[in-house]
Amino acid sequence: MTTETLRQHWSEGKTSYNIFLTIPSPWTAELITHSGWETFTIDMQHGLMTFDTTLAMLQAAAPTGATPFIRLPWNDPAITMKVLDAGAAGVICPMINTAEDVERFVAACYYPPMGYRSFGPIRAKHYTEGNYFAEANDQVLTFAMIETADAVANLEKIAAVRGLDGLFIGPFDLSVSLGLDRIADFADPGLNEVFQRVLERCAEHDLFSGVFTTKVEDAKKVAEMGFNLVTCGDDSSILEQAVKGRRKALG
Amino acid sequence: MTTETLRQHWSEGKTSYNIFLTIPSPWTAELITHSGWETFTIDMQHGLMTFDTTLAMLQAAAPTGATPFIRLPWNDPAITMKVLDAGAAGVICPMINTAEDVERFVAACYYPPMGYRSFGPIRAKHYTEGNYFAEANDQVLTFAMIETADAVANLEKIAAVRGLDGLFIGPFDLSVSLGLDRIADFADPGLNEVFQRVLERCAEHDLFSGVFTTKVEDAKKVAEMGFNLVTCGDDSSILEQAVKGRRKALG
Amino acid sequence: MTTETLRQHWSEGKTSYNIFLTIPSPWTAELITHSGWETFTIDMQHGLMTFDTTLAMLQAAAPTGATPFIRLPWNDPAITMKVLDAGAAGVICPMINTAEDVERFVAACYYPPMGYRSFGPIRAKHYTEGNYFAEANDQVLTFAMIETADAVANLEKIAAVRGLDGLFIGPFDLSVSLGLDRIADFADPGLNEVFQRVLERCAEHDLFSGVFTTKVEDAKKVAEMGFNLVTCGDDSSILEQAVKGRRKALG
Amino acid sequence: MTTETLRQHWSEGKTSYNIFLTIPSPWTAELITHSGWETFTIDMQHGLMTFDTTLAMLQAAAPTGATPFIRLPWNDPAITMKVLDAGAAGVICPMINTAEDVERFVAACYYPPMGYRSFGPIRAKHYTEGNYFAEANDQVLTFAMIETADAVANLEKIAAVRGLDGLFIGPFDLSVSLGLDRIADFADPGLNEVFQRVLERCAEHDLFSGVFTTKVEDAKKVAEMGFNLVTCGDDSSILEQAVKGRRKALG
Amino acid sequence: MTTETLRQHWSEGKTSYNIFLTIPSPWTAELITHSGWETFTIDMQHGLMTFDTTLAMLQAAAPTGATPFIRLPWNDPAITMKVLDAGAAGVICPMINTAEDVERFVAACYYPPMGYRSFGPIRAKHYTEGNYFAEANDQVLTFAMIETADAVANLEKIAAVRGLDGLFIGPFDLSVSLGLDRIADFADPGLNEVFQRVLERCAEHDLFSGVFTTKVEDAKKVAEMGFNLVTCGDDSSILEQAVKGRRKALG
Amino acid sequence: MTTETLRQHWSEGKTSYNIFLTIPSPWTAELITHSGWETFTIDMQHGLMTFDTTLAMLQAAAPTGATPFIRLPWNDPAITMKVLDAGAAGVICPMINTAEDVERFVAACYYPPMGYRSFGPIRAKHYTEGNYFAEANDQVLTFAMIETADAVANLEKIAAVRGLDGLFIGPFDLSVSLGLDRIADFADPGLNEVFQRVLERCAEHDLFSGVFTTKVEDAKKVAEMGFNLVTCGDDSSILEQAVKGRRKALG
Repeated sequence: MTTETLRQHWSEGKTSYNIFLTIPSPWTAELITHSGWETFTIDMQHGLMTFDTTLAMLQAAAPTGATPFIRLPWNDPAITMKVLDAGAAGVICPMINTAEDVERFVAACYYPPMGYRSFGPIRAKHYTEGNYFAEANDQVLTFAMIETADAVANLEKIAAVRGLDGLFIGPFDLSVSLGLDRIADFADPGLNEVFQRVLERCAEHDLFSGVFTTKVEDAKKVAEMGFNLVTCGDDSSILEQAVKGRRKALG
Repeated sequence: MTTETLRQHWSEGKTSYNIFLTIPSPWTAELITHSGWETFTIDMQHGLMTFDTTLAMLQAAAPTGATPFIRLPWNDPAITMKVLDAGAAGVICPMINTAEDVERFVAACYYPPMGYRSFGPIRAKHYTEGNYFAEANDQVLTFAMIETADAVANLEKIAAVRGLDGLFIGPFDLSVSLGLDRIADFADPGLNEVFQRVLERCAEHDLFSGVFTTKVEDAKKVAEMGFNLVTCGDDSSILEQAVKGRRKALG
Repeated sequence: MTTETLRQHWSEGKTSYNIFLTIPSPWTAELITHSGWETFTIDMQHGLMTFDTTLAMLQAAAPTGATPFIRLPWNDPAITMKVLDAGAAGVICPMINTAEDVERFVAACYYPPMGYRSFGPIRAKHYTEGNYFAEANDQVLTFAMIETADAVANLEKIAAVRGLDGLFIGPFDLSVSLGLDRIADFADPGLNEVFQRVLERCAEHDLFSGVFTTKVEDAKKVAEMGFNLVTCGDDSSILEQAVKGRRKALG
Repeated sequence: MTTETLRQHWSEGKTSYNIFLTIPSPWTAELITHSGWETFTIDMQHGLMTFDTTLAMLQAAAPTGATPFIRLPWNDPAITMKVLDAGAAGVICPMINTAEDVERFVAACYYPPMGYRSFGPIRAKHYTEGNYFAEANDQVLTFAMIETADAVANLEKIAAVRGLDGLFIGPFDLSVSLGLDRIADFADPGLNEVFQRVLERCAEHDLFSGVFTTKVEDAKKVAEMGFNLVTCGDDSSILEQAVKGRRKALG
Repeated sequence: MTTETLRQHWSEGKTSYNIFLTIPSPWTAELITHSGWETFTIDMQHGLMTFDTTLAMLQAAAPTGATPFIRLPWNDPAITMKVLDAGAAGVICPMINTAEDVERFVAACYYPPMGYRSFGPIRAKHYTEGNYFAEANDQVLTFAMIETADAVANLEKIAAVRGLDGLFIGPFDLSVSLGLDRIADFADPGLNEVFQRVLERCAEHDLFSGVFTTKVEDAKKVAEMGFNLVTCGDDSSILEQAVKGRRKALG
Repeated sequence: MTTETLRQHWSEGKTSYNIFLTIPSPWTAELITHSGWETFTIDMQHGLMTFDTTLAMLQAAAPTGATPFIRLPWNDPAITMKVLDAGAAGVICPMINTAEDVERFVAACYYPPMGYRSFGPIRAKHYTEGNYFAEANDQVLTFAMIETADAVANLEKIAAVRGLDGLFIGPFDLSVSLGLDRIADFADPGLNEVFQRVLERCAEHDLFSGVFTTKVEDAKKVAEMGFNLVTCGDDSSILEQAVKGRRKALG
C-alpha cells in the first residue's frame, strides 16, 4: 500500500493495523507480511536490529506491498536519512519532547526547501513511481512519538510544526514518565486524557494519529476512538507468548 | 539438561517435549529457550539456517541449559562432525532408508574405534565436564528418522545397527512416501501402525523413540503411547499462526 | 514470471534472456532485477555465494517477479532440496556426465512418487498459488548442464531421463573438456556441432534448451538458433568491464 | 556474577580483573569467558564491533555468567539505551570532559524519574530476576572515563554527579592529553597523581574506581592501590603478542 | 598509494580519479580496486553500508594499495574516529555548512593537541610505516563537502579552518540547495561559479579540491579546471547502466 | 609468497612454518598474517568457519602476501573447487584412507585433462599473474592428510597417485586411529615410525611433507627431520592459553 493510499484511507477515518518487528530477521519480516498485515514497523529503538538488518528486512518484506514504517533509534538525521534512502515509507521518531525536537526530525525527512535531507535515494527510487525527487516530500510519512510528560506539556506546539504528519503515542514510556500507577493500562484515566488531547490536536492540525498497543481489545478500543495507525504488539512478544502457551499446554 | 540426564529421564519412561527451530536467528533461539522448553532441535534440513547461523543459535541458547539437538541437512559426515564439534548434544539424521545409511550416519558421530569421527571439538569441549575425548562417545545422542516406505520395510535392520540411540518418526514425509490419503493425520491407521512398529523395535533394541507433531493433542497422544522425544511444532509455523490469528481478531 | 508462463512462452518458441549473479549481495540482485531482466540465475557454483546469501538474494529479487533460477554448486540432494524450499523456481545442475547423474539430480527435485524430495517448503509455499505440495512437481524447472565430453557422448541417454525439463550448455567447460583450440568461441565448429545435437535432442524429447554466453552477439545468435533460456553474462564480469572501461576513458 | 554481587565485592575493597574485547567475534568472546575472567568489556569504541556483533558476543558469553561491561563508542543516548536493552550489566563512557557530559550519560542509563531511558528491555529482562523495570535502576553500573586534561580539571564536579557509579581511567588518551613524555607509563608521576586524585574522589563520593592497563605488573600495582575494576589488556593485543612470540621462537 | 604520495601528486597539480562505492560488498570493492582505480571512496552516507561492511570492504580492497577514502554518514565524532581506527586514509564529511561544522569534523580526526581523537588505531597501525601515533596527524586527509547554499555563503571561513585538507563539491545537493533549474548539470553557470570560488579558496588556503561527477566528460572537464580528487560515478549506478544497456541490446 | 616460490624453497630442503586459523574472523586472520607467519591454513574442518567466512578471511589476509592454505571440511569436489575459485593457494584434504580417495581429491583440483575442475576462477584470477587457466594446474598445491590406520596401511599407493603434491600428517587423529597410548605425543615410537615412513615415501615420489604440531619444540623437531610444511598450533588454542595464563598471573 503506497503512502498515498494510506493517507486517503486515513482521511476517510479508517484505521490501519500495524505490527512492530523487533526480531532482527528478514525471514520473520517476510513471514509476517505474508500473514495479512498491511503495514508494519521495524523497531530500530528497542528491537535488536541495526541498519544492516533493517535493509534486509525491507527487502524481504517488499513483495507483499505492506507499507514499511521504521521507528528510528533516536532523533538523529544520519539514520533518518539512511532509512529513507533505503525505502522506508514512514518514520516514527521516539522521545520527542519539544517543537524544536520535531523541527530537527522533520527537516531531516524532506529535501530543500522544506528540509535539509541529502539527495541519494539509492533503493527508495526503485519503489516510487515517477521522479523520486519530485515525489518524495509528498510521500514520506512522519510521526512524532508522544511518550513523555514534556511532550504532553508541549503538545500544542509540537502539533503545530509544519511538515509533521502525525502523532504516535507510546503508552509504556508515557505511563512511566507521567508516574502513573500501572504501566500502559488502557483503562487508566490519565492515559485516556492524553489519548483525547492527542486526537484533538490531530483534528485541529490535520494530523494522523497513532498508538502502540499490545492487546487486541486495546487496539480495537483505540481504533474506535478514531486512531489511524494502531499497532497491536510486536513479533518477539507474540512469539514468546505462543511458545510459552504451547509448552504449558503440553503439561 | 545433559544427555546423561536425558537418557536417565527417558529410561524411566518419561517424555521430553521438543520444538523445532526453523527461523535462522540466534535471538529467537534465545527467546524460545527462555520460555520453558527443555530441549530444542535446530532444523538444518527444512529450516533456513546453515552452519553459521546454527553455531550462533547454539551460543544464544546455551545459557538456559536446554539440550540442543540438530536435524542434519543430510546424511553427510562433513556436516555431522562439524555440528558435533560446535556443541550439538544430539543429532537427528533425515531420510534414512537402510541399515547402511544408519551405519554411515553413526560412524561419523563416534571416535575410533566405534566410528571415524575426526578429533577437534573446538566448542563442544567447553560444554562437557571431564575429558571430552573420553566422554564423547557416551554422550552424543543419535536418532535416525523413519520417514520413508523403505525405512519402514527395513525397520528391523535399521533398529539393529550398533551405536544408534533412537528412531524418530517424520510423519509428513512418511505419509507422502506411503501414499496415505491425508498428510500427517495422526488418526490414520497406516501411520499408527508405523508408530506401533517403531515403539516395538525401540523396546526390543533398547532405543529411544521420537516423533514430530504439529498439534498439542497429537503430541500428548504420542507421549501417552510412550514416545520419549516428542516435538510439537516449529517456530516459523507457531509465529505464523499467532500473527495471522491476531490480525484476524482485529477484524 | 511463473514457471508456468515461462513454459508456455518457451513452448511457443520464444527465448528468455537471463543473467548470472555471482556477486554475493542482495542489493545487486535487487538492482539487476529492477533493470529489465525477466529471469536470473544465482550461480552457487562459481559465484561467491552460499545458501545464506542465496536466500537473501531470492528475497531481495522477489518484488519484481523475475523468475529465480539457481545453478547448484554440485549434484547434491541436500543443497538441491534446500534451494527449492527457499523458493528457487528452476535449478540448473552442473557437471552432469551420465543418465545416472541426471536421475540423482531430478529425483531430488520431485516429491514422491516422482522422486524423493523431502517435504518442508518453508519459504517456497508463500510464492505458489494453491496447494504447494500438489503443484510443486509441475512447477519446478530442472536443467542438466551439458559441459563435458562425457555428457556429449551420453547425450541421448541424458535427454531421455524422465522428469528432466531441459539441457543447458556450458561452453567454457565444454571447450576445455573437448580440447577445443579456443575457449567458448561461438564460431568454433566443434562447439556448434554440440549446439545442434543438443537442439535435436531437445526437440526429440520435448525438452527446453539453454546456453551460457558472455557477449550480446553470441546471445542473439543462439536465440536465433532456437535456444529457450539464453544467459548473457554475469554481474561480476559486467561490472568489471564497465569500471575498467570508465577508468580507461578518463585517461 | 550479578552487578549486585560485584558491588558487594568492591565495597569490601576487592578488585575484579577485566579484559577488553576488541575482536568482533562471538567465538572469541565465548572462549575468553571460559578462561577464568569474571568480568569483560566489549570495546565498541576502539574495538572493531558494532551493535550487531556486540549482541552476538553478549549471547555467546552469557553461559559462564561473566559480567558484561560495554565501553560505549561515544556519549550518545541511542547506543547507550540499545546496549542496556541488549543486556549490558555495566557501561563505560569514553571521553567525558565535564559534569554536563556525565549528566547526559547517566540520564540515558536510568528510567524516570532518575533519567530518561526509554522502556523496552527486550533481551535484558531475560537476564534479571524479578521485575526488570523495578530492578534496573539499581542494577546498571555506570562508569565515566577520565582520560582528558579537561576531565582531570573538572574531576570534583564529575565525581559529584548523582547516579554515576564509578570513574575509570584511560591512561593512553590521558597521557596524550596531558602531554606526558611517555604514553601510559605507569611509573610516570603525572599519571600517578591522577590515579591518587581519582581514588580520593571515589572515596569521597562513594564511587567505584577503575583503570585500563596492558601489563600484568601494572594491573597488580593498581589493584594494590585499591582500584576496583582493573582491566589487563585486550584480546587483539594478547593474540598478536602470542602469535608473534611463537613465530619468533620457531626461528 | 599512501596519502603522502597523493599529496605530492596533487601538489604537482595532478588529478586523481576516484569511484564511489555504494554496494555493500567486499567482493565488489575488491573487484573494482583490481580494475585500475587508484583511489576509491566508500560512501557511508548514501551507500547501503554501515561500519561492519565498510571494514570488510577496506580489508578486501587493501591488496591493491588503492587509497581508501570514506564519505562519513554524518559529521559525528564517533563514526569518524571509528573509520580512522579501521584504516581510512581520508575522510570526506557531508553537509558542512559552517566553520564550526568543520572544526567539529577535523578535531575528531587529529590526536591532541591538534584535536581530540581518541587513541586506539587497532587496524590502521598495521597499514602505516613507522610509529602510528607520531605519523597519523600528518597522514590523514580531511575533506569538507561543499553542497549547500550555507556552505557557499560561508566558504571563506570554512576554507580557513586549521587542519582541513580540502574542499569537495557535491553537485547534486548543491543544485537542490541553490534552487538551480537542473540537478548537477555541469554546464549550469551557477554551479560553475561555485567551482571557481572553491578553486580560488583552495589556492588561497593551500587546500586540495575535489568534486563528484557521474559522467566521463564532466570528470575530464573538472580535471582540466584543476580539481585534484575527481570522482566519476558510483558502482551501483555503473552496474545498473551496464545491465540495463545489455538487456536493451538483446532486444 | 607464491606457490612457485614455496616449491622452490621446499625443494631446497627448507621448512615453512604455518599456523591453523580456527577463529571465524577476518580480523584475526589479518592480525595474524601481519605477525610474521609466511603461510597459514584456514581450517574448514574443525575450525568454526564455512565458505562465507573463509572468503572474508582470504580477503583480509591478502595484503601481506602470506600463502593461504585451506584444510577442506571433507573430500568433496564442490567445496574443493569453490575454495580454489576463491583463491586458495593450497588445499589439504582430511581423512584420506586410500588411493581412490586421493584420486577423487586431486581430480577436483585440476582442469582437464588432468582432472575435472570446472572453470570459473572468479577471485583466484586476480591473484595470479598471467593466464589463470594456463597456470592453475601448475600452481595449486595439494596435500593429502595421513591420519588414519588405513592411510598408513595404504601409504605406498597413496603416495603414488599422480597429481598429488604432498602428504600432511595429522598426529591427533592418527594417534586415536592407531590406538596409541597418548594422543599426539611426539616422543611416541609409533608416531615416529609413521613420520619416517611418510618422509621416505615423499622422498621416493618427489612429494612435499607436512605435519601438524601444537608445541614449538615439536615443530622444531619435525623441521629438523626434514618436514617442509610445519604447522605450529591454531589461533583459538593460542589465544586460550594466553588469556588463561594472563588471568592466572594476576592471581
